[in-house]
Amino acid sequence: MTDVQTPIDLLIEPRWLVPVEPHGVVLERHAVAIDADRIVAVLCVEEADARFAPRERVVLSEHALIPGLVNAHTHNPMTLMRGLADDLPLMRWLQEHIWPAEAKVVGAEFVRDGVELAIAEMLRGGTTCCNENYFVPDVQAATYRRLGFRAMVGLPIIEFPSAWARSRDEYFDKGLAVRDEFKGEALVDTCFGPHAPYSVSDASFARVRVLADELNMPVHLHLHETAREIEDARREHGVRPFARMQSLGLVNDHLIVAHMCHLTDAEIAACAEAGVAVVHCAESNLKLASGLCPVEKLRCAGVNIALGTDGCASNNDLDMFGEMRTAALLAKAVANDAGAFDAANTLRAATLGGACALGWGERIGSIQAGKQADLAAIRLDDIETQPLYGVVSQLVYAASRHQVSDVWIAGRRKLRERVLVDLDTDVLRASARRWRERIATI
Amino acid sequence: MTDVQTPIDLLIEPRWLVPVEPHGVVLERHAVAIDADRIVAVLCVEEADARFAPRERVVLSEHALIPGLVNAHTHNPMTLMRGLADDLPLMRWLQEHIWPAEAKVVGAEFVRDGVELAIAEMLRGGTTCCNENYFVPDVQAATYRRLGFRAMVGLPIIEFPSAWARSRDEYFDKGLAVRDEFKGEALVDTCFGPHAPYSVSDASFARVRVLADELNMPVHLHLHETAREIEDARREHGVRPFARMQSLGLVNDHLIVAHMCHLTDAEIAACAEAGVAVVHCAESNLKLASGLCPVEKLRCAGVNIALGTDGCASNNDLDMFGEMRTAALLAKAVANDAGAFDAANTLRAATLGGACALGWGERIGSIQAGKQADLAAIRLDDIETQPLYGVVSQLVYAASRHQVSDVWIAGRRKLRERVLVDLDTDVLRASARRWRERIATI
Repeated sequence: MTDVQTPIDLLIEPRWLVPVEPHGVVLERHAVAIDADRIVAVLCVEEADARFAPRERVVLSEHALIPGLVNAHTHNPMTLMRGLADDLPLMRWLQEHIWPAEAKVVGAEFVRDGVELAIAEMLRGGTTCCNENYFVPDVQAATYRRLGFRAMVGLPIIEFPSAWARSRDEYFDKGLAVRDEFKGEALVDTCFGPHAPYSVSDASFARVRVLADELNMPVHLHLHETAREIEDARREHGVRPFARMQSLGLVNDHLIVAHMCHLTDAEIAACAEAGVAVVHCAESNLKLASGLCPVEKLRCAGVNIALGTDGCASNNDLDMFGEMRTAALLAKAVANDAGAFDAANTLRAATLGGACALGWGERIGSIQAGKQADLAAIRLDDIETQPLYGVVSQLVYAASRHQVSDVWIAGRRKLRERVLVDLDTDVLRASARRWRERIATI
Repeated sequence: MTDVQTPIDLLIEPRWLVPVEPHGVVLERHAVAIDADRIVAVLCVEEADARFAPRERVVLSEHALIPGLVNAHTHNPMTLMRGLADDLPLMRWLQEHIWPAEAKVVGAEFVRDGVELAIAEMLRGGTTCCNENYFVPDVQAATYRRLGFRAMVGLPIIEFPSAWARSRDEYFDKGLAVRDEFKGEALVDTCFGPHAPYSVSDASFARVRVLADELNMPVHLHLHETAREIEDARREHGVRPFARMQSLGLVNDHLIVAHMCHLTDAEIAACAEAGVAVVHCAESNLKLASGLCPVEKLRCAGVNIALGTDGCASNNDLDMFGEMRTAALLAKAVANDAGAFDAANTLRAATLGGACALGWGERIGSIQAGKQADLAAIRLDDIETQPLYGVVSQLVYAASRHQVSDVWIAGRRKLRERVLVDLDTDVLRASARRWRERIATI
């Protein structure tokens, strides 16, 4: 049969294959055929051997293979502020610790080094894509491109001057230049990142709306994170922030909203109808005592749910396995239903849910022919995941990110048996220590 | 100075020493001097070199050394049922999955193998002591003793027949025989384990009370886990379960209560006044949608708080690092205060809080001269815990149990650079697979 075999770059044969689409399925004795950056086929091993002549074959005898995890809300340069200040109310945390530190250090070097450290942590935890939201997006985008990490980079819009821009016009001008520079990149794209209703004016939102429609770009913002935000907005604008976003024409299927801890039933229905994607940041919401997102209600209403870690200054990690577990556990208490947000729906949110939120549902988020080969392998033979009754349960409720062995992005191996292919951890460690010395003395 | 040096068995020099007592302190350039099973001194390294001639010296150059973690509520044989059934309401989970499986398999072999697997998982996660509550306590106690693991073993009391006992008298008789057999053991002791108010009669509770007073033994039970439990009790007994325990004379400083998700302010005050210890099982309470323990309110009222994982069938792990993190995060949302249950208080609950709950506050739970040498070392140079601004923050909010490198119980090394000293993981894995094959077909 050799003469009819198609040469391909890579064939991966995991013990268990969890494609996410179809929902809840676990395949055994199946392989993923990959050529260049793309999944060519998902098929049983016998058929794979008959059809393909792979240049490389990776057998993962005790592993589950899943789509790479999508961290749909993060501020990765802040990884350098992991644990800088904890156990503080939001405004003291921001005003006394985070903002003063940012005022001193934010710039190209800080953003580059923070993103590098974040990429290392994400890869070691099975994350292959992030939705980034911070200052200096040009350096972010360049760092993701250089290191071959898939990212949606937000173009920040905020009504105060920063190291990135001094005026509204400059935020838009510099942002659009970054958009143009990275347009058409294989792994990196840009969206609008107007910070939040309390820090962005109607005029800026109106401009975002026009540009996002015209350029077909997602809009990513923080919304209904705290009860205080809603009270303040009612005083200032007479309506809740969600209603203000509706009146500004932003509530549509371009919109990616992080947090959403405080929602009425009408707002949930409006999200579903408009095709808004909600990024649930369970751990950040708990740590800052922001509130409890009604994630199961949203899901049942038909809203696409993604998961995000938020930044390391309020989490304090980029661990999407931890985030899945916390989201799945917390949703049950919030819904008062032990059946809420089950393991399969949680894994979907952390993969395909994130992909769809970014508008990349056709490109990534599941293991299917035609999609990009963004994959993570997790060893399940550690005693911490024994015995094994159900693979998806084990992934969500028992496995740790430290069991992630191998990661591919667009068909390129980025983590090989726990070793980062493109990054030197000693260099990252030294860099983190230098930044700590600088930031801790502020 | 050699002639005045005292010979000791072991000197440990960690980069950071977190003694837990005094509260919130992190020591650098300090060492722990250990002889036989006991901590002889905690002192600066220069003084240690002058005073002691250690037979073994362990330098932990990138590690924090903490008291071994105390898992204050668990059902370790159920580790063999990890992930057997998830995402189900409590009664369906019990009636359709857990109880039928238990009816088929519970016995000496199941308990021995489950406890062995649990000990391996606990040691690899920095846990050195547990408060156990399950059937067949003689086999549990014998397994903990054989493997040198510190445990308080509950003598089960419940009003239905089981593989362990058929009648009330038999539960008491067999339990007391186990108590006598293990009395005076270095690492293992017994307490009474009347299951819960809904499964134990007044007559049995009265007998527990008399015996616990007479024999000076703790009493460990499940209390106010669900709202349903309280409603049912009001119908059957006319009062809430806590009030029934009060009228039975059980609310005193012998009492260790797990869960306590539903509490009035008066009940919180009564717990504080009586010296009751509360074991907070954050992840189990979330997963079974039981409710949210007001842990910060309890702590502020002066109640001693311990942490427990509960059994692996409802968690699904024995990860006390994960439990610390979830407890610290969740408490903030429940208290609506980002300053609630801070990192130092959380670490205290997971160590000294557990020790005090078991009546072992003088023996373990902190790194102090005179206490048992139960210790865990955690590497903090992984990139997941970089940069490092505060050690206790990093331990609670960012570190994973996979960073635990070494563990000692009563001065004996049980984990050496991630390798279990007394247990073969291949044997444990094979055993877990055999049990899975048997249980999955029930």
